[in-house]
Formats: sequence, structure tokens, C-alpha cells
Amino acid sequence: MGGDIRKMFMLGQKIKLENPSFDLIDLSLGNPDLEPPLEVLSSLKELLMSSEKGHHRYMDSAGLLEVRDYLAKELSKSEKTHIAQDSVYLTVGAAGGIQILLRTFIEENDEVIIFAPYFPEYIPYVENYNAKPIIVKCDKKHEPILDDLRKKISSKTKMVLMNSPNNPSGIAYSKKTIEGIVHILEEIKNKKGHVIQLVSDEPYSRVIYDESKVVPLMNLYAHSWLVRSFSKDLGLAGERIGFIAWRGEFAFPEIINAFRNASRVLGFVSAPRLMQRIIPVAYNAKVDVQIYKNRVESFIRILSGGGIETIMPDAGFFVFPKCPVQNEYEFCEGLVKKGVLCVPGSGFGCPGFFRASLTQEQSRVEDAAHRIVQFVKNK
Amino acid sequence: MGGDIRKMFMLGQKIKLENPSFDLIDLSLGNPDLEPPLEVLSSLKELLMSSEKGHHRYMDSAGLLEVRDYLAKELSKSEKTHIAQDSVYLTVGAAGGIQILLRTFIEENDEVIIFAPYFPEYIPYVENYNAKPIIVKCDKKHEPILDDLRKKISSKTKMVLMNSPNNPSGIAYSKKTIEGIVHILEEIKNKKGHVIQLVSDEPYSRVIYDESKVVPLMNLYAHSWLVRSFSKDLGLAGERIGFIAWRGEFAFPEIINAFRNASRVLGFVSAPRLMQRIIPVAYNAKVDVQIYKNRVESFIRILSGGGIETIMPDAGFFVFPKCPVQNEYEFCEGLVKKGVLCVPGSGFGCPGFFRASLTQEQSRVEDAAHRIVQFVKNK
Repeated sequence: MGGDIRKMFMLGQKIKLENPSFDLIDLSLGNPDLEPPLEVLSSLKELLMSSEKGHHRYMDSAGLLEVRDYLAKELSKSEKTHIAQDSVYLTVGAAGGIQILLRTFIEENDEVIIFAPYFPEYIPYVENYNAKPIIVKCDKKHEPILDDLRKKISSKTKMVLMNSPNNPSGIAYSKKTIEGIVHILEEIKNKKGHVIQLVSDEPYSRVIYDESKVVPLMNLYAHSWLVRSFSKDLGLAGERIGFIAWRGEFAFPEIINAFRNASRVLGFVSAPRLMQRIIPVAYNAKVDVQIYKNRVESFIRILSGGGIETIMPDAGFFVFPKCPVQNEYEFCEGLVKKGVLCVPGSGFGCPGFFRASLTQEQSRVEDAAHRIVQFVKNK
Repeated sequence: MGGDIRKMFMLGQKIKLENPSFDLIDLSLGNPDLEPPLEVLSSLKELLMSSEKGHHRYMDSAGLLEVRDYLAKELSKSEKTHIAQDSVYLTVGAAGGIQILLRTFIEENDEVIIFAPYFPEYIPYVENYNAKPIIVKCDKKHEPILDDLRKKISSKTKMVLMNSPNNPSGIAYSKKTIEGIVHILEEIKNKKGHVIQLVSDEPYSRVIYDESKVVPLMNLYAHSWLVRSFSKDLGLAGERIGFIAWRGEFAFPEIINAFRNASRVLGFVSAPRLMQRIIPVAYNAKVDVQIYKNRVESFIRILSGGGIETIMPDAGFFVFPKCPVQNEYEFCEGLVKKGVLCVPGSGFGCPGFFRASLTQEQSRVEDAAHRIVQFVKNK
């Protein structure tokens, strides 16, 4: 939980404590509420009934071979390039994957480029390695400004850490943007021989409203690292399962071994084994993304009616409306007293906006939107 | 996997590759082979059938309240001191718990005391924080030499990282030893006001052959931190579940919050949720420790018949015999060619010994022991 998210959450807790009957709609935390598909739960039960031995033991810290093989095949299709069994590494959630990549590539004083609005945890993640997060601004559509990226790259830049579809904006960067980022990185590589790793953190890629909006990245740039989890699409956020994937042409033992070392030193050891095993069985049993989309559309429609601008997200359950008053901290704090908990945009590197996490039933989401509109009207 | 363990394991792989029919008994890896008790597996199935919602979502990174509460009550009994719900923190295995403690307490150039023989991962764990591991020697019974501990403590000592029952020796430090360690730490605290944290890494404490050999530590020293996992006692090594516990009198929000921050920054987020839920249901459904004990006794009996000295362990499935020849690397490499894979003691900070992990059926363990004796006889 980022500092601002936590601050708002605590404020909500305080109000609830003082007045337990107060009806507060908490849109602060990004805790996906759609249950794992029944197929996931029934498959887990079946896996537990296996009479084979050894299913809960330690294993290669890269993960189970058959799971890596399955993902390699699926990703080869969706990423439109060859992903090998040995270019997939299972991790303790997407967060575990990012840690392994940072531990492997980043040294003291290195710079890591992050696009605002950003997932707040990126800042402590990077600083934990005594490296420096460098923030690149976004345009009005929440897409990274390529000129700003070009300006911010220095000889110390080791990595670009990208999150698309994005938390908090819900925007999936356009093909043009992604190709533009890759073009800049290619240019620097060709002119200066300076290789910048492109880490693509994609926990929301499979909760997208329109599949055609997912741009396969791996076929565009050789030095790209895909990080995903099953927290959102399979509804398994608390079970800590994710992976790193990269190009099949780099399926070297040196890379896998570097990741194994990082997993050991960081104390992850391996991804939880039972949750690895569910992947080849229930990969396609996704949650019903339409439910998230309906909430997002309703919420935005009501806000829009009240004059609050929001760009329609492409995926997930977050919306990132423009704050109708100057000080968004004041706005969010006032809003809590009207019974809606949102998070100021500054925590995501974007003052002037606020984030609402629509992980509540549609009627609650609509109720919250009406309260926000009412609050603005009465100001 | 420590460097030496890995090296031996790779040597075994090479021999198997060259000659697939070669019968190699691999005693190198500490992968517990006893299956989770049936009660654990059937309880997991029941948990998956719950009709309640939200069982796989994100949660407080400290873990589920009811699980922390259950452990607090159990540990209050076994540790003979008050452990509170807020002095228990669930982690991604014991390794995850140690990481959180190091991240919280250790800064650059701090010193962490480790007793030889030690779990090899301790060295990179400590060095990862740019701190210095300081090795304290053990006596002939593999118990720490208290005078050496006293000598090695400096003004930079922040933590003593203890592993009892021990991997590789299997020894549970005696009450006298543990009281001696605590006495030294108390003395330093009283004379100099210098508080040293005592971290007790105890994944083998519940696979002990004689319960009376487990010395409750928490009632002896206020600044002690218990780290355990369910990898060995519940046979869930691949599922990554463990915890940290400390004294109830220190159940401060400041400590829990420091651990929450560490969990976030290190990318653990939380311990896997389904595996947390199994704890209150099946805590006492342990594996049959007698099976490990029988293997250990047989193995030692046969070795002893061949003139190889081994101290009888108190817990687990490791034995740490004295190496019958001067160079234990040469010994282990020769042994591989006779079909037994063991690990040289140097990797555990104890040259002149070797480790055998008895995670094979009793007949295989005995076969291995006979081969070792035969190998020594023919030298």
C-alpha cells in the first residue's frame, strides 16, 4: 500500500471507529473482488487429490517445467515471438518478478525510468537498491511523453519500468506509444551501444475490455521482460503467483541462474507450488471482465454528468478522474466525510487527479459516483 | 542451494547424463520427502469448498487475524511466555521471515553473528544488506563455543542468527548453551546498553525426536525473534508458508508496520493465503518424525561400524559425519563415483565433515551408508 493510499485508508478506519454506522464506500484499495472462476477452485481440489507423491516439495526455483513449458507456448502465440521453456521463470506474484529483475540488473546509483502516473510501490522498489527512480511525464491521455523520455535517459539509465495497462489510469498504452518507446531505446543501443532493459509489468493485461488493445511487446524489442501475475485475471491476488518471460533467443542458463540466485538471496526460494500447478489447467478460465467494464462505464457516466472528466480506461477496475478542485488532498479528505474513500493523484505522481478502485458491486459504485457529484455540486 | 551443494548436485547430474543407468543415491539436497499428512490435504480441499467470498484476495500483509491469533495461543504455550496476535507475522516461508528481520534491523557495515556449522544461505542473506557475517566456532558436539561468541561481539554487532535444531548437524543446542548465549547478550545490554537481536531460525523445531529437547527461547530473552516454517513438519516446503513471532510485550504497531513496510519493499506482499488458512486447521497433523529418526539411526549405525564418527542429531533428516580423510572435497567427489552424493562440510563453515540428507526411503539410506563404508575401506 502506497503512503497516500494508506493515509486515506487510515482516515476511513478512524471515521468508521468514531461512528460505526457511518456508510463509507471504500474505493481506496486495489483489492480485486471477483472470485476465482469455479473452474480454478475445482481444479485446485482435483490437484490436491492426486495420488502421485512429491507435489508439495521444494523444486527448481525457476518453477515446474511443465508449467514453464505451458506458459512458453501460450506466450509465444500472444506475444508473436518465440518464448522458450527456459525463458519463463515463475515468481511470488508480479512483485516478486520485479524484485528479481531489479536485483539482477540494478546497481547503486543506476537510474530506472518510470512513467507517471505510476504504481506507487515502484519508488521504494527502486530505492531499495540504492538506485534512482526518474519520472517521465504523461500527456492528457495518460500516455508517456516520448520527448520527455528522450530527455530523461542518461548514461546511468539501466531500465525502463513500464506498467500498461496502467494502475492507476487503466490506460493500455497505444501501439504508437510503445513503438515510440522501443524506437528510442533501439536508437540509443545502436548509436551508443547502451542497452536499456524494458520491464513491462502487466498484471492487468488479461483483464482488458478489448483484446485488440494489448500490444505484444516481446516481438518489438529484444531486451524486454514481461512480468505478469494471476492476481487479477484468475482472482488469486492473495495466493502470490506470477512469472517473468523473455525472448526465446535469450533462453541462456546464465539468465535463469542469475534469477535463481536472486530468488535465493531475496528469500523467495520459489513460487508457491500448488498455485503454479493451476496455471496449465485453468489459464483460460478468466474472471468476467465485462463486470469490471460495466462498473467503470457507469461510474464515469455519472461523474461526467456532474462535470468531472475521466478518460475511459482500457482494462481493470481503476479510474483516474480529473480532480474538480485545485487541491486534491483537500478534495479526497472532504469526500471521506461524504462517505467515499478515494486516493489523491499525487501518490501516483499525478497531482490534479484522484484514483477510485471499483472493487465493489455496481450499485455501490454508482452510489459512490452520485455522492461525488453531489459533493462537488455543494462545494 | 548453497554453492557447494549446487556443485555436488551438478556433478551428480553430469554423471547421470553420461551414464543414465548409473545408480546414484542423492543425499545432497535437503528436500523433505515425507508427504503432507492426509489431514492437511483433506483440510485444504474443504477450505476450497467454502462458499464464503474473498478467500483468495489480498489481505493485511501481516496475515489473516484468525491465523495469527491461533499461532499466538499455541506459541504462548510452547514458548512459556505471552505471544500476542500482534506479535505474530506470517511470511513467505522461514526465508521470507529472515529477510524481513534483516531488512528491518540491519544496515550497511553492521555485523551479524552466525554459528558454524551454518545454513549456507545465511552468508548471502547478510551480505545482501552490505552487512558482515561473523562466524563463531562450535565445539566437538556442534554446540557454539561461548568464549568465541564473547570475543566476536563488537560494537557493530546487531544480530545473532541462530539455527537450532541445526542444518547441517541436526543438533538442538542444549539448554545450557542457549542460556549461555542469552547470558552474554544480557550482560552486554546491561553493561553497555547495547541491544543485540537474537533471531532463532527454527524450521526443524517440530521434527524433533524428543520434544523435551526443544528449549523455549522466548521466555529467556526479550529481544528474541522466532522464525519457523511449515516446510518440514507439515511437508509443505514448496508452498512457502512461515512466520515470525516475538514477545507479547513488544506487540507494538511500530514493529508490525516496520515488517509490513519490509514485506512491501521486498516484494513479498503477504504469505500465500490458502496456506495460511491451513494452519489453525491442521497445525498438529505433523509428519511421522519417527520415520526420519529411524533412517538417521540406521545410517549412523552402519557408518559407525565402518569407523566413521557421527554425532546423533536431535531432529530432522540431516547427519553431519566426520570425514574419514583429510580433504573432504576429494572425499565427496570420490564418493559420487561410488554412487553416493554428499556435500563437503566447508560449505557449512566446517571443514573436515560432510552432510548427508536422508530424504530417501530407509533401504536406500542404508544402501548409501554401506557404499560409504565400502568406499572408505578400499581407499
